[in-house]
Amino acid sequence: MGKVVTLGEIMLRLSTDSGVRIAQTENLHAHYGGGEANVAISLANFGHEVYFASKIPDNGVGEGVKKHLSRYGVRTDFLLTGGSRLGTYYMEAGIGERAANVIYDRARSSFAEMTESEWKKEELFKNVDIFHISGITPALSSYWKKTTIALIKAAKDAGSKISFDINYRGKLWSQKEAGETISEILPLVDYCSAGKLDAIYLLGIPDYTGDDNELVYYYQEIQKKFPNITILYSTKRKVISASSNELIGTLWINQNYYESQNHVINPIVDRVGAGDAFSGGVLHSILVQTPPQEIINFATAASALKHTVYGDCNQFSEPEVISFLLAGSGKINR
Amino acid sequence: MGKVVTLGEIMLRLSTDSGVRIAQTENLHAHYGGGEANVAISLANFGHEVYFASKIPDNGVGEGVKKHLSRYGVRTDFLLTGGSRLGTYYMEAGIGERAANVIYDRARSSFAEMTESEWKKEELFKNVDIFHISGITPALSSYWKKTTIALIKAAKDAGSKISFDINYRGKLWSQKEAGETISEILPLVDYCSAGKLDAIYLLGIPDYTGDDNELVYYYQEIQKKFPNITILYSTKRKVISASSNELIGTLWINQNYYESQNHVINPIVDRVGAGDAFSGGVLHSILVQTPPQEIINFATAASALKHTVYGDCNQFSEPEVISFLLAGSGKINR
Amino acid sequence: MGKVVTLGEIMLRLSTDSGVRIAQTENLHAHYGGGEANVAISLANFGHEVYFASKIPDNGVGEGVKKHLSRYGVRTDFLLTGGSRLGTYYMEAGIGERAANVIYDRARSSFAEMTESEWKKEELFKNVDIFHISGITPALSSYWKKTTIALIKAAKDAGSKISFDINYRGKLWSQKEAGETISEILPLVDYCSAGKLDAIYLLGIPDYTGDDNELVYYYQEIQKKFPNITILYSTKRKVISASSNELIGTLWINQNYYESQNHVINPIVDRVGAGDAFSGGVLHSILVQTPPQEIINFATAASALKHTVYGDCNQFSEPEVISFLLAGSGKINR
Amino acid sequence: MGKVVTLGEIMLRLSTDSGVRIAQTENLHAHYGGGEANVAISLANFGHEVYFASKIPDNGVGEGVKKHLSRYGVRTDFLLTGGSRLGTYYMEAGIGERAANVIYDRARSSFAEMTESEWKKEELFKNVDIFHISGITPALSSYWKKTTIALIKAAKDAGSKISFDINYRGKLWSQKEAGETISEILPLVDYCSAGKLDAIYLLGIPDYTGDDNELVYYYQEIQKKFPNITILYSTKRKVISASSNELIGTLWINQNYYESQNHVINPIVDRVGAGDAFSGGVLHSILVQTPPQEIINFATAASALKHTVYGDCNQFSEPEVISFLLAGSGKINR
Amino acid sequence: MGKVVTLGEIMLRLSTDSGVRIAQTENLHAHYGGGEANVAISLANFGHEVYFASKIPDNGVGEGVKKHLSRYGVRTDFLLTGGSRLGTYYMEAGIGERAANVIYDRARSSFAEMTESEWKKEELFKNVDIFHISGITPALSSYWKKTTIALIKAAKDAGSKISFDINYRGKLWSQKEAGETISEILPLVDYCSAGKLDAIYLLGIPDYTGDDNELVYYYQEIQKKFPNITILYSTKRKVISASSNELIGTLWINQNYYESQNHVINPIVDRVGAGDAFSGGVLHSILVQTPPQEIINFATAASALKHTVYGDCNQFSEPEVISFLLAGSGKINR
Amino acid sequence: MGKVVTLGEIMLRLSTDSGVRIAQTENLHAHYGGGEANVAISLANFGHEVYFASKIPDNGVGEGVKKHLSRYGVRTDFLLTGGSRLGTYYMEAGIGERAANVIYDRARSSFAEMTESEWKKEELFKNVDIFHISGITPALSSYWKKTTIALIKAAKDAGSKISFDINYRGKLWSQKEAGETISEILPLVDYCSAGKLDAIYLLGIPDYTGDDNELVYYYQEIQKKFPNITILYSTKRKVISASSNELIGTLWINQNYYESQNHVINPIVDRVGAGDAFSGGVLHSILVQTPPQEIINFATAASALKHTVYGDCNQFSEPEVISFLLAGSGKINR
Repeated sequence: MGKVVTLGEIMLRLSTDSGVRIAQTENLHAHYGGGEANVAISLANFGHEVYFASKIPDNGVGEGVKKHLSRYGVRTDFLLTGGSRLGTYYMEAGIGERAANVIYDRARSSFAEMTESEWKKEELFKNVDIFHISGITPALSSYWKKTTIALIKAAKDAGSKISFDINYRGKLWSQKEAGETISEILPLVDYCSAGKLDAIYLLGIPDYTGDDNELVYYYQEIQKKFPNITILYSTKRKVISASSNELIGTLWINQNYYESQNHVINPIVDRVGAGDAFSGGVLHSILVQTPPQEIINFATAASALKHTVYGDCNQFSEPEVISFLLAGSGKINR
Repeated sequence: MGKVVTLGEIMLRLSTDSGVRIAQTENLHAHYGGGEANVAISLANFGHEVYFASKIPDNGVGEGVKKHLSRYGVRTDFLLTGGSRLGTYYMEAGIGERAANVIYDRARSSFAEMTESEWKKEELFKNVDIFHISGITPALSSYWKKTTIALIKAAKDAGSKISFDINYRGKLWSQKEAGETISEILPLVDYCSAGKLDAIYLLGIPDYTGDDNELVYYYQEIQKKFPNITILYSTKRKVISASSNELIGTLWINQNYYESQNHVINPIVDRVGAGDAFSGGVLHSILVQTPPQEIINFATAASALKHTVYGDCNQFSEPEVISFLLAGSGKINR
Repeated sequence: MGKVVTLGEIMLRLSTDSGVRIAQTENLHAHYGGGEANVAISLANFGHEVYFASKIPDNGVGEGVKKHLSRYGVRTDFLLTGGSRLGTYYMEAGIGERAANVIYDRARSSFAEMTESEWKKEELFKNVDIFHISGITPALSSYWKKTTIALIKAAKDAGSKISFDINYRGKLWSQKEAGETISEILPLVDYCSAGKLDAIYLLGIPDYTGDDNELVYYYQEIQKKFPNITILYSTKRKVISASSNELIGTLWINQNYYESQNHVINPIVDRVGAGDAFSGGVLHSILVQTPPQEIINFATAASALKHTVYGDCNQFSEPEVISFLLAGSGKINR
Repeated sequence: MGKVVTLGEIMLRLSTDSGVRIAQTENLHAHYGGGEANVAISLANFGHEVYFASKIPDNGVGEGVKKHLSRYGVRTDFLLTGGSRLGTYYMEAGIGERAANVIYDRARSSFAEMTESEWKKEELFKNVDIFHISGITPALSSYWKKTTIALIKAAKDAGSKISFDINYRGKLWSQKEAGETISEILPLVDYCSAGKLDAIYLLGIPDYTGDDNELVYYYQEIQKKFPNITILYSTKRKVISASSNELIGTLWINQNYYESQNHVINPIVDRVGAGDAFSGGVLHSILVQTPPQEIINFATAASALKHTVYGDCNQFSEPEVISFLLAGSGKINR
Repeated sequence: MGKVVTLGEIMLRLSTDSGVRIAQTENLHAHYGGGEANVAISLANFGHEVYFASKIPDNGVGEGVKKHLSRYGVRTDFLLTGGSRLGTYYMEAGIGERAANVIYDRARSSFAEMTESEWKKEELFKNVDIFHISGITPALSSYWKKTTIALIKAAKDAGSKISFDINYRGKLWSQKEAGETISEILPLVDYCSAGKLDAIYLLGIPDYTGDDNELVYYYQEIQKKFPNITILYSTKRKVISASSNELIGTLWINQNYYESQNHVINPIVDRVGAGDAFSGGVLHSILVQTPPQEIINFATAASALKHTVYGDCNQFSEPEVISFLLAGSGKINR
Repeated sequence: MGKVVTLGEIMLRLSTDSGVRIAQTENLHAHYGGGEANVAISLANFGHEVYFASKIPDNGVGEGVKKHLSRYGVRTDFLLTGGSRLGTYYMEAGIGERAANVIYDRARSSFAEMTESEWKKEELFKNVDIFHISGITPALSSYWKKTTIALIKAAKDAGSKISFDINYRGKLWSQKEAGETISEILPLVDYCSAGKLDAIYLLGIPDYTGDDNELVYYYQEIQKKFPNITILYSTKRKVISASSNELIGTLWINQNYYESQNHVINPIVDRVGAGDAFSGGVLHSILVQTPPQEIINFATAASALKHTVYGDCNQFSEPEVISFLLAGSGKINR
């Protein structure tokens, strides 16, 4: 088992019951989540020693974050308290043809408003196998743009592998701004979650026009630009409706392309965090050194399972993911 | 934006949780609804000045009706109070192959028992662009049969366009009785929601035997009989199961036939009021004078959206319906 | 209408909301159920005089069992009280590709720990048309292995028909142990729920290798071994996912094979007890002497309906099952 | 144990969560209840053979009534089906200084609209120890006024004791009308629930002006008028607020007055049916022939317990009532 | 009936179930409220024409505010949309000795961040009888400090009476800052909610040392300083615990002191907004010109009733408040 | 801050909604708890390094225990997995005069069935300041009787202080059996939760007959017998009803008696675990070395707060307990 640090923002999601609109609701479900926190929980579920670094307000809502992480065994030694608020967002889940509707209220959170590094980097990265961070963090402020890079460098210097999830959010920054920053980050990265759209719109790779598997092309091009990246991965998601998706995981490793079986996900209980469950599955498999085909099978199964539970984080252990992979679909075991 | 009056009965729906039978339930969900009230709410959501005329008991249940309408901005100036009760019905939602089960307890409601017109017609119809009423109202009593026609005439005299939704309910009257009354009403109508079954069973139009689009035939035949009707519309609903339907809206205007794209609605959250959402979409489009193809696209999208929320009324604004139309299916926007 | 006794264990099911894991939940839904109890309730719903014999603890949980049965009109004259506990099990419902997850906590229940017959057999089986029992009971203990056979003999002696549902549970006994016991029981049985897997793994019938309907073969082979069995039945279930199944009922009677239409069950609300609803439908049809094709149509429809309600037991009356059979799929009746 | 028949109307209560108004609520709790049905359930809980005679509609709501009664072991052999509807009422529970608010919608129910006796009296009253009925039934219609008396006479002729609960409801009839009818009934009655207000306003007994226990006076005066009544009983309720009451039961038997200890009931969970629980306790004690002081202790304890559970009916067995009586207040037993 | 404008901030309250902590909860109840909005709703319930002026974000949460106000009949013509967010706060209700716990997240709301007046004052105050505003608004920003005064002056110039609720919040500004601003406002005010603590800490009035009713002294002193104020009012609240309070309303008018009966409020369902319900009752009574003793009786009863319902606003009509005043405590009316 | 190990059984509590009986409920609330686990959580909330040692089944229910403890920061390094089941109990909360009703189903749990020590004692007790255990553990089996003593000795040898909560449960063992075992344990104990009833019925101390504070007498007598005990503590609870208690904490230290203020607890939200919250408060105060009066103030306040939240464990931090102590009763802080 490995030691992992993930760092980023965590928010409170306030969501309505399925079929109820925000303007109408008398009740909101409270879930905590954020890309890096979700990856942390996945890895803790799989048995690793995981630390989530962030900053939360010193009140009951911040305490809720801490309890959420602790519940899954994520260590909160680097969870700072202070600042003014926890970012929140409101959400109406999608149903059938109707897409989910998200209202962000995340500005000026304790994390986003940080202006100086409050962690001791030598402690933060001591004996860390993987440091995982995403493209959301540098998008939060100019402070975070430069600090993200500084943290990655410090982790690298301390001997960690760097895992980066591009996770582009158009509501936070432009493609141009993102592309520039990410291009500064990627030369430092070992494992990267990046797909076709990232390649085209952020990294400036020309559209593929051939007849072969386009992902092979995009992965190859990304790796040409950033030969330091040893593993690239992403999912191909076929959106039949907000309630029904199909999911295939793809992996690029040692110049080889792998993909998982197709998972038919219907109905979708909660899609939020499915990508993070996928990343968590990839990083776990890297840490326990399974062969490439097993990496992508495991990670995609973990992501498919995430769709079947409420909340932002995966809640399945390694044996549960494996037995899901082995089982056929939907039988009662009794 | 226009000024609209709708008039009819509104009831309290008492429904069980999905998967729970009435005889078993400890809990009933309370929703207020009725065809004309639902159309009123749709139009208020779209920005029109809308009045719903009806009669409700002077108690907390009646007050619930008033609050329900006001919440959506429908004006209750013509909502009379008095009489003995609000009609109710119990409902088990359908699931898969099992159809919904409805138990009516609507007899002797404040509205159904009205015996004299308590509105001042000159106030009710002053500057009204559209007066909307349905075939349920004349089915309630002999008083209402004659009053429905009188109200329509008064509205017409005052310069309103007349919108009529045939909305045949076999539990309220026979096809013969309905056909006779409706045949008296239709010569006064401008916009009419009527479909194939209405044509055959109520209006006596012979079955179509040709190979072309049968709806063109039925619309044409209806219009031959009632050349005053300028717009006819209805939906083609393919019932795969109680949880899964497909929906195409159809429109007949200026001797031309238009239809919307096919909406795949799966799962259905709540089908009640979907037809009213469709009528609301048509009337809105008429009021803002969009071209025929846009009328039917908008109205069908509004109806499809209605299926995704609980309650009898549509809860989407005009921009939301349009952005639903433009978007692909089921993506999170973040 | 007939008089029926069913005998077996009944448990408390503690299940989470769909999409919530046991380790996470703050809430558990309580349902009582067990194969023979569920069959008893089905038959009481259909109008028969039904007695459920079992043993429950003398406390509020046992009282809950009694109230559950009484609610549906099942007579509890032979429901003994005493012993230490009611067996329970925890359940996460399956969703899509993810199968249901069951944690049994059924050992040492009041019923399983019985060591002497506390019923007066002459009373228990007086004028009973059908005595129904399942393969779960002899699997509970060596006492129950021998007592199951003794009870069946006593019922047979008293003139009852014997109905037996093999209901093999791998968590309770091995295939070998089950096969031996069941082979002792089957020579006493009139109506038997048994399928392909039972034939192969428990009764030692060789795999079918031909091209015809394999069930005809298996039913024939079972009947060759046990010519006393006059009716054999089982369902063919196509598991598309935990949320979507297809179901065909099959029946073997007088050397003839019958099957029902295919029922598309999507979504599945609660699959537990669907087989018992099927048995209940078969036994009802036998008691009211409907022709074979109607037996299997009715029983399969009853089972399909069971999938649409929460809880272990079918909650539909005979007229409701028949009107479901006659109706098309999923229309609102209003 | 005895055999008891109770006869009357049963309704569906639709109540809001405490602190939520009817006009606002999205949810209604469904409870079935009525004075005579509640007494029936109390007596069935205490182990008697009890039949509830009434008429309910032939639909899911009526089926709910039947399941409700069966759940508690009340026999439904004389529960007729037919007619148009089940009476309902809406209720906001009282809280503190704010009283409960009830909206009746009970007119024209299946029971109230009965116009001919649909029971065979010789079956209904065969070997019945006690026939229990209340003053609500004759208030429902002129048919019921005369039929109530006829039924009481038939029961008396068949050898039953007659139990009558005056239960005056000002919303159903005037004091004058009630007084006249009740004065016709009381000469036939053996056990009667009647209190000070009944004595003064319905039976015309002058106000007490002395210094002694006024109830002794009123009971004496009632008995002077109706010497056939062997037992009179009622409660003295001190209403501190809608959430806090004190309750003392009183009993008049053989010219002696008995009263129970004072029960402090705070908080009140649900007050509806507390009087019926009291009557049930009295009738049970009569049937098992306990001494007068025990009668009133038991009945008052049963009523006090009823205040602590939701729903119209008492849910405690005889041993539970007795152990409540013996225990001190509010200790955990573990 | 009068015409009233209230102006201020409205927030979303997110509260846990009673007995559940914020850091633990999976569910939050959503209520909208704010002092001036609550007063507006009270007055609309009582039949007045009421406008609430504020600014809300242009999203589903803002839409929720609008629907909330409309539901009660408050006009939203002056409800601006725009800006970044709706202020929120989290709340654990108090229970017994444990006080409520509030976490504010209200900074930078659409209303608080306003920097220029977006209403046309001549429209806003046209024919307005009362303009109501509170001391929270000037505490929000320096812009709002100056704008509050400007709005009051404009209203006064337009002929409105000015109603001001001091409503001091220590979390928003210091006593010194508040005292200065409020001292600038009070010379413009007609009706003022102010109590002993306001007098001492904000207005610099010396502590009372005599033996008479101290409130007479404080009211007199306030009025000496601000002789323009014709009506002063406040409540005396005896906090026995968070679940149990006693409440007396007090009123100063024409140099006379009036107080209401004592209301024992136990249990408290939701205390938030009780002061606003009191103000609403006072302003209503002023508008309908009831005598002083009736003013304070009515207003205090309205406030007592508010404690018995969830949500920030009073939900009782004028006849309901009056019948509550007349009724004794806690009886079922049936 | 200190290091603490607590060891004992933890169970799943299944409780109904207040006012709902077990035999009736469709829903059970799931809470995990046990005396030693609850103390562990209290101490972790107060900032100590706490380990809970126990044994849980290797399934989702056991996983639930682990997540419950981790959520509050309790370390689960010594939480063994294996065995057959988690003990459970069903509970109806008490209300007013009606006491809580508990049905145990705890026999044969993974913990109770342990037969050999599976912890390495040298690891378990390394640098531990306090080892806390209760009288429930030796009551579970003869294995546990002897093992409890062995563990206490090992902890003592390793240098820990021993904290023991007598916690007598009549359903588990007789007073005689308990008295003998506890008398073997107490000579090893440093801090002991013991009260008057323990003194009389378990330790054979004669009833006090004097006029002074009887607790001084009992504490003195206990200490005479067991001079090694340096701190004795217990609560005086006045049970007004199941919903209303008064609580005074008492402490004996250095031959001096201290008691806290009286806490009026009304309403009681959940009384389970209130004694453990008290013990947790005492042990925390010992660890941070506050003066005796502060020990008892803090511990009693912590216990009073526990009554206001659902679940078995205290959920308040040290600053929250202190601010509760300082604040008056029940004010909103805003």
